[in-house]
Amino acid sequence: MKKIPVVILGATGSVGQKFVELLHEHPWFEIVALTASERSAGKTYGEAVRWMGDMALPPDIAAMTISPTRPDVPGRVAFSGLDAAVAGEAETAFARVGFAVVSNAKNHRMETDVPLLVPEINAGHLELVKKQAFGKGCIVTNPNCSTVGLVMALKPLQDAFGLQAVQVVTMQALSGAGYPGVPSMDIVDNVLPFISGEEEKMQSEPLKILGTFKNGAVENETIAISAQCNRVAVRNAHLESVSVKLKNKAPAAELIRVWQSFTAGSDVRNLPSAPEKPVVYFEAPDAPQPQRQRMLGKGMTVSIGRLKACPVLDYRFVLLVHNTIRGAAGGAILNAELLYRRGFLDD
Amino acid sequence: MKKIPVVILGATGSVGQKFVELLHEHPWFEIVALTASERSAGKTYGEAVRWMGDMALPPDIAAMTISPTRPDVPGRVAFSGLDAAVAGEAETAFARVGFAVVSNAKNHRMETDVPLLVPEINAGHLELVKKQAFGKGCIVTNPNCSTVGLVMALKPLQDAFGLQAVQVVTMQALSGAGYPGVPSMDIVDNVLPFISGEEEKMQSEPLKILGTFKNGAVENETIAISAQCNRVAVRNAHLESVSVKLKNKAPAAELIRVWQSFTAGSDVRNLPSAPEKPVVYFEAPDAPQPQRQRMLGKGMTVSIGRLKACPVLDYRFVLLVHNTIRGAAGGAILNAELLYRRGFLDD
Amino acid sequence: MKKIPVVILGATGSVGQKFVELLHEHPWFEIVALTASERSAGKTYGEAVRWMGDMALPPDIAAMTISPTRPDVPGRVAFSGLDAAVAGEAETAFARVGFAVVSNAKNHRMETDVPLLVPEINAGHLELVKKQAFGKGCIVTNPNCSTVGLVMALKPLQDAFGLQAVQVVTMQALSGAGYPGVPSMDIVDNVLPFISGEEEKMQSEPLKILGTFKNGAVENETIAISAQCNRVAVRNAHLESVSVKLKNKAPAAELIRVWQSFTAGSDVRNLPSAPEKPVVYFEAPDAPQPQRQRMLGKGMTVSIGRLKACPVLDYRFVLLVHNTIRGAAGGAILNAELLYRRGFLDD
Amino acid sequence: MKKIPVVILGATGSVGQKFVELLHEHPWFEIVALTASERSAGKTYGEAVRWMGDMALPPDIAAMTISPTRPDVPGRVAFSGLDAAVAGEAETAFARVGFAVVSNAKNHRMETDVPLLVPEINAGHLELVKKQAFGKGCIVTNPNCSTVGLVMALKPLQDAFGLQAVQVVTMQALSGAGYPGVPSMDIVDNVLPFISGEEEKMQSEPLKILGTFKNGAVENETIAISAQCNRVAVRNAHLESVSVKLKNKAPAAELIRVWQSFTAGSDVRNLPSAPEKPVVYFEAPDAPQPQRQRMLGKGMTVSIGRLKACPVLDYRFVLLVHNTIRGAAGGAILNAELLYRRGFLDD
Repeated sequence: MKKIPVVILGATGSVGQKFVELLHEHPWFEIVALTASERSAGKTYGEAVRWMGDMALPPDIAAMTISPTRPDVPGRVAFSGLDAAVAGEAETAFARVGFAVVSNAKNHRMETDVPLLVPEINAGHLELVKKQAFGKGCIVTNPNCSTVGLVMALKPLQDAFGLQAVQVVTMQALSGAGYPGVPSMDIVDNVLPFISGEEEKMQSEPLKILGTFKNGAVENETIAISAQCNRVAVRNAHLESVSVKLKNKAPAAELIRVWQSFTAGSDVRNLPSAPEKPVVYFEAPDAPQPQRQRMLGKGMTVSIGRLKACPVLDYRFVLLVHNTIRGAAGGAILNAELLYRRGFLDD
Repeated sequence: MKKIPVVILGATGSVGQKFVELLHEHPWFEIVALTASERSAGKTYGEAVRWMGDMALPPDIAAMTISPTRPDVPGRVAFSGLDAAVAGEAETAFARVGFAVVSNAKNHRMETDVPLLVPEINAGHLELVKKQAFGKGCIVTNPNCSTVGLVMALKPLQDAFGLQAVQVVTMQALSGAGYPGVPSMDIVDNVLPFISGEEEKMQSEPLKILGTFKNGAVENETIAISAQCNRVAVRNAHLESVSVKLKNKAPAAELIRVWQSFTAGSDVRNLPSAPEKPVVYFEAPDAPQPQRQRMLGKGMTVSIGRLKACPVLDYRFVLLVHNTIRGAAGGAILNAELLYRRGFLDD
Repeated sequence: MKKIPVVILGATGSVGQKFVELLHEHPWFEIVALTASERSAGKTYGEAVRWMGDMALPPDIAAMTISPTRPDVPGRVAFSGLDAAVAGEAETAFARVGFAVVSNAKNHRMETDVPLLVPEINAGHLELVKKQAFGKGCIVTNPNCSTVGLVMALKPLQDAFGLQAVQVVTMQALSGAGYPGVPSMDIVDNVLPFISGEEEKMQSEPLKILGTFKNGAVENETIAISAQCNRVAVRNAHLESVSVKLKNKAPAAELIRVWQSFTAGSDVRNLPSAPEKPVVYFEAPDAPQPQRQRMLGKGMTVSIGRLKACPVLDYRFVLLVHNTIRGAAGGAILNAELLYRRGFLDD
Repeated sequence: MKKIPVVILGATGSVGQKFVELLHEHPWFEIVALTASERSAGKTYGEAVRWMGDMALPPDIAAMTISPTRPDVPGRVAFSGLDAAVAGEAETAFARVGFAVVSNAKNHRMETDVPLLVPEINAGHLELVKKQAFGKGCIVTNPNCSTVGLVMALKPLQDAFGLQAVQVVTMQALSGAGYPGVPSMDIVDNVLPFISGEEEKMQSEPLKILGTFKNGAVENETIAISAQCNRVAVRNAHLESVSVKLKNKAPAAELIRVWQSFTAGSDVRNLPSAPEKPVVYFEAPDAPQPQRQRMLGKGMTVSIGRLKACPVLDYRFVLLVHNTIRGAAGGAILNAELLYRRGFLDD
């Protein structure tokens, strides 16, 4: 198989670096260009980046020359780790000249013709791109990092029992704020009870993701969702305390059963970045924890634990999601793999 | 005024040390004895304790000889920082010989003739001690450290609007687990979603504290409460994300008003350890935080912030309570002050 | 006594805030003006500052209007918490119009007519200001935060035994980098082995501080000093592992004795900010620690421990210094008190 | 190749768990037994262990039944993660019945007929085991976790220039203290300047490791070494600030060159656990750091940086070593591989 040429937009940022890390040896995609701000353009990636990856920066990537973020670079797919301040226009420009733009930015997520995609949950929403007027170009997005953990846990419950209301309180990792991000004096021996814009995203994005594709459009789900978001001194992975009210009551064992048996559709489940299991339920009283479960399924599996009856709603539980893998670059790459599998990258 | 002689039970533990720190220069009480386990008895306090106080260990306290925890020590009041494994029997024994036992342990909290006391909220419950069969001795208790923060925020709402349901998710400090407590490998770059017994206490204790004293007994309040408890890498102060459903709806400004105007009864509010304001509401979008508000009112004031409409219940907010001061030793000392003020320490 | 009017230069920064905190109720000085960058000028201090103090921001200070950092403000003393990028020129300008500039910035420290002052060590160096051509104005400086801890431990050894060589490795607190300072992703579960310019300052400043005032000039001491500086995840207080080679050998007990008996000159030791003891030696095998000793002497005392024979030089030990109090604002205020005491603020 | 059967002694402890993790898919060794204290014996490993590994506990290992730590278990090699309190006698007992005991415990390290082995440095010391009176059994040890990082950096310098004196100050990771190990209240926002016994080990072990095997014995090297050891809030990897005095002076570039060209002997360098390079020198001013370099060479490479002239000795630098891989289980496994390669496991 000839690899598909891809460009990473905003390659020096923290999401951009994760794209480099996860795409460097990808079986289907090959990095042919890297873009960044004018300040970095012209330098080699090795010179311009403050590399924070787990693996050493690959020498071939380090030697690549950075381009400005303009759609005159080569490639068929554009992975966007751009900042929201510039992502909106730049991504549209790339789509217009024929790139399949696979974006982690928030700008286009809630547009009616843009899929807000989690392949295990709503692969069918991909059909929305046919309404986009970009020719062979298109824009698909993945959700906010804390949203994706939540919807992965909710989807099996919604399918089996229906959901009426959801309460979630997050304890989110530092890497979600990028770099330099959260000042150390704000978080060592402290918790921040505020993350700008985060609660709003968590309350709106799930309704679209869990919505139904009908007559060429997504009809949003109607679930009351309340989100309170906190930042804690953890490097990676968001922990979320959740309560849910079901439409159809069921015993706790049933909830665990539907989580354990939850699988993606057949053309999703063997995509290169798809984890063996989208969600795993743990019986241990102190699971999940960032330290112990964040790398489950190479960071693509959402871990759940502590299911108990809730005296206010019906049930409560705790979930954990790796925010920079499943919640950002890894999720976007899975979206691109689905685009390819379903023929959206054929010329 | 001649000071009232007091003994600290379990004086070498972390709550015991906080008692020493807060009682050392107390205007009404004078430490005349310190007890600990048989292993420490006979040593000086300075030899036996692994002192962790903010101030240097006072030399006169350091020189005191530790007694075993048996009721043959001098004193009128016994402040108990005993471990739950031994507190039940020991506290009863001290009450039986005439001590007013002011306990931070959980053992007697839910007994029907033992006040579970927060003076600003339910000073009237103190009358329960008259049903205790200890002569001039008695037992009074203060709530769990995470409970007290919650009920301080709930009490003004209950009085003004009535409460139907409460959801709370805690992010609790390390000091709440005592010493050695939480291993560092469990909490550096991690969150623990489990604190043994904590959720149960938070769901039951508020019902008694907010209950009504009638015909010589406390009639528990009936509010549906759901609590999920997490441990985070913070030294002191618990942060709690709360949602509430009110019986009588009200605009947000009204909730803030009732918090800001909340005061204790006149004989409580000028007790030596009573803060100027039991609760304070902060308008800043990122308040309260452990680093910034935990010492408010010398650690006795509960801080509240981020009041917003809740899409599931009615309102949500964030609160902060200093767990070892208001939530433990400081709260117990305030209880003892109330005992004195109301004549329960007269012979 | 009529208080001396003072202005704080760079009042919104982290050192500036500490000046506000420590000067607010100072017995001799009264804050009459606050300056900051043009961006903040014209706002009230309460609006412009991101207050991080331990105490609540005093309302009278919060209501003060910020001036631009230009020498047309009132006051006799100017406490400078200015950034090194602007401190050099601004401080000279203030001195020129008659301010006694008491600076924490590095810019003028090594100039031959500027005292680099630690009152317990080299109060006599204050005479240098007479060589400054500023009329009633002058500039005095305090050392780098990690330097001052070191010289406080070295001075008694130098006086008693003479010093030939010093090795020091620091573990420095986050607050030393200001705000936003060190990104959290750089320090949670990490150590940074590099602090820009710090090793150079630690190797040069002690030679001037420990130098001799002779014939109107300071003759630097000649000691070989090697410093390696690291940043660790501690909020406040620098820990330093030190080895020394003495000119005249002595038993360990002698070193402890000279530390314990070290006192400042009689007109220094009862200045308002002078600690009871400049240094204290601890016998405990695990002292000093940031958590336990940093507030000793209200943050002005340097703690020492773990004195052992060194197989390479002669002795080694560990010291702890509060970097934002003794190492910055508190040290500067002590300098200003000495200026007043010695008549340099008389008109 | 038929795999060599091995037993892990003390398999539930933190070193024992790392042995499980690193041996589970080892090309030469196969885990056939696991031992632990009497309390755990008889349980499955999955029941008894509080698994903290990076990977999920392998099901086949989880299902193994734990044996008491007595030499009646099967196996040719015994990897010892035993606590020093029991390791001495237990390891001797295992050697006596024919096990090659590969130990991480300190007990036998300094015995004259026991190799203290770092294969890249002193593979020849393995000959010492011929003086042991255990028949086909033997005992070999690896050094303390902070020692091994130091000697890896020193060996190339010693060979090229000779070493006269070494000063080292460590900043050590939490995992080195095992589990529960360091209480979180001792390390969050703190540094501990004391690790029991550590300074003594660092001052004595390098002299044996760098010693010369002659006439059937190791003649210790004579270098003056001074070590000061601190614990910091890092999960894994020890950072060390080092100064050295060379016998033969050399320019800095020469030191870097000998580090970069340092390789192990030909039969060591392609052992399965041997890293491609034993040490790597980094030019970046802020390298090495635990977060960035600890996994270099799968945790077996020691990283060095910041070489500068030292005003007291000759040169100083910073090094980083992964304490539970190169400094414990990984180092021990490399020793066992050398035993096999050199025929010491042939029957």
